[in-house]
Amino acid sequence: MLLNEERLHAQMARLRLDGIIASSPENVTYLSGFWALPQWIRRGPQAYVLWVESGVGEPEVIASTATLDLVADQNVWIKRVRRYGAFHIDHNGDAAIDPVSRRHLELQAQPGHGDALSALVAAVTEAGLSHARVGIDEIGLLPGHLEQLKTRLPNVTFVPAASTFRDVRAVKTQEEIARLSRVAEIAERSIEAALAVAQQGASERDLARAFHTQTVQSDATPVLGCIGFGERSALMNVQPSNRTLKRGDVIRFDVGGRYRHYRADIARIATFGEPPRVVRHHHRALVAGVERACELIRPGMRVADVYAATVETVRREGITHYQRNHVGHGIGIDGYDVPSLTPESNEILEAGMVLCVETPYYELGRWGLQVEDMIVVRADGVEKLTTTSGDLMVVES
Amino acid sequence: MLLNEERLHAQMARLRLDGIIASSPENVTYLSGFWALPQWIRRGPQAYVLWVESGVGEPEVIASTATLDLVADQNVWIKRVRRYGAFHIDHNGDAAIDPVSRRHLELQAQPGHGDALSALVAAVTEAGLSHARVGIDEIGLLPGHLEQLKTRLPNVTFVPAASTFRDVRAVKTQEEIARLSRVAEIAERSIEAALAVAQQGASERDLARAFHTQTVQSDATPVLGCIGFGERSALMNVQPSNRTLKRGDVIRFDVGGRYRHYRADIARIATFGEPPRVVRHHHRALVAGVERACELIRPGMRVADVYAATVETVRREGITHYQRNHVGHGIGIDGYDVPSLTPESNEILEAGMVLCVETPYYELGRWGLQVEDMIVVRADGVEKLTTTSGDLMVVES
Repeated sequence: MLLNEERLHAQMARLRLDGIIASSPENVTYLSGFWALPQWIRRGPQAYVLWVESGVGEPEVIASTATLDLVADQNVWIKRVRRYGAFHIDHNGDAAIDPVSRRHLELQAQPGHGDALSALVAAVTEAGLSHARVGIDEIGLLPGHLEQLKTRLPNVTFVPAASTFRDVRAVKTQEEIARLSRVAEIAERSIEAALAVAQQGASERDLARAFHTQTVQSDATPVLGCIGFGERSALMNVQPSNRTLKRGDVIRFDVGGRYRHYRADIARIATFGEPPRVVRHHHRALVAGVERACELIRPGMRVADVYAATVETVRREGITHYQRNHVGHGIGIDGYDVPSLTPESNEILEAGMVLCVETPYYELGRWGLQVEDMIVVRADGVEKLTTTSGDLMVVES
Repeated sequence: MLLNEERLHAQMARLRLDGIIASSPENVTYLSGFWALPQWIRRGPQAYVLWVESGVGEPEVIASTATLDLVADQNVWIKRVRRYGAFHIDHNGDAAIDPVSRRHLELQAQPGHGDALSALVAAVTEAGLSHARVGIDEIGLLPGHLEQLKTRLPNVTFVPAASTFRDVRAVKTQEEIARLSRVAEIAERSIEAALAVAQQGASERDLARAFHTQTVQSDATPVLGCIGFGERSALMNVQPSNRTLKRGDVIRFDVGGRYRHYRADIARIATFGEPPRVVRHHHRALVAGVERACELIRPGMRVADVYAATVETVRREGITHYQRNHVGHGIGIDGYDVPSLTPESNEILEAGMVLCVETPYYELGRWGLQVEDMIVVRADGVEKLTTTSGDLMVVES
């Protein structure tokens, strides 16, 4: 299961919530295992999960009729499903029916609601929550929906819960860590595939094609593909262009796809031929920063202390003027989970958090350098999900 | 330019708007050419465009400081840019500076605002719109933002404008049609690549890998990849599994990536070996439906009449019980643009609309069949963007 149920229940108890509603794609999938295609690829289509305290009732998924095949075909661990909207499918009574089609038909045969919000109102009411405190993930709702819910359920106390979900998601389950480990590995292999085509005259786009090909060959989906050469490597979000490789160029990768809904985000530096000495020198300082962070990270450690030690290390090891807004962030079903490794943070690290630890350095007009690793916070320190080192790689020119 | 400026101005005049604000990723890119990576791959990060009537003032882009490199590197046709938030970059005065880096530095040197909403409030105020009627694309805002805008700009009359943007986007510019044409072609080539690996024992995932590889090799990004065999072809959103090909199987593709931000959505049917006669018979009826639609489509035609004729044709040509909620939809920077080809629609077709015309038929437990083409509404009828026919393809088993 993706959901950290224990942590969800602890948060609900703390906030005295009798129920909690997921409305954004990340939280719907996280709570239920249900991945609603239209909700993920567009803005507007609605799907929800109503989660209730055990003893109070049974959680349920609220899905458009046009997505019931996905509910039937996926490993959705919530069994109660409520549908809304119309979608026509045919069925020949004589046809041999496989289990997925049978489940789909069963879901389709249930009474439906006219629209998403009416289905959600009915779910809350039938769960006996019409006078309760209910958390609501406000991010996935359409404008005006929260107001409509309050009007139609006047005795429910709605509590904004997007941040509650972010907090629950911060500590990963075993299944989540397995997926994150796999997607990190896919990103590393994809960098390897990109570097295999790095030769005189190859363009950023050539490397990007090789990168994404390896990603899709591994059943992952491209998301982040910042690949820049030379002066373009200093553009923090660099999108691949026709700029071709020249001897001495820095090649910066800040990349990662999505595998079974989970994200990777790693960074590596290569150079095309031996780089100027200052590149090696600065890059080593950035590696030292990440290494220092990894030495310090463990449960109970203050995020702000990790930040301070990381920046201080990079400065001491060679980039004396190093400045940075954060040195990493959580990662999971979203590319930026909590915590964010900033100096202002009051957060404390916990076992099971998965973090991207990074020390980017962008020197405009020259080059950008970056090391970013994915790690799990374990009882005794850091477990790396990346298997390659962050050392500078030199591609023969 | 992506923007249909004439149509935007006509809509603004009709609604007596002095300005209009884009907040969703599609509309920000559409209005300005600015593609803000974080806004496209996550929910929450904000970017806006404030568009004003010529004569009133100058349009502007509102971007986070962390995305100014993209503004500098992309073909953004709005020159005024306002930044918010902090992001540190370095710059060595001695380095030779290319034009992109120079523009980036210039943007970075401008004064910044603390947060996105403060930047937007300042933009509206400085544009002289603090007592004006301003359309606002409500879809991209975070919960509570619209209320905050109303509080901070109490004399602005805000008019919800998400539907206005959808209406403007319905009639495509030449540049949009060129991109849609290219992405349709990429989808067709990717189907061809997938069918090249269709053999005994090949799985849905094998075909999906071949499909997406061709897509990324063509510099497009995978989005929609519904590929199903046999009974799974009847699942309308089928996601590729390990189900392997068996003789007589239907193979259904409902697929399309994104190329330079523009979407494809096409459907084709193949069978592995000669299919049962009923499959050919039903499929021919679906092709006839799409052909009938294409005969009728031209400027001035009622959408509801196209719907009625299409469904009637499929019934007459062989699927007597055919039922369907719509027979197509617009496509562009979003996968579902207006108009939607429904029986309830009051919309009238216009020259320059790009439509997906489709007649899907899902018979649960047996197979799903579907023909979906992308076309442009031209003065004298339909121009197809798909170059392959929708005829059933038989792969030798």
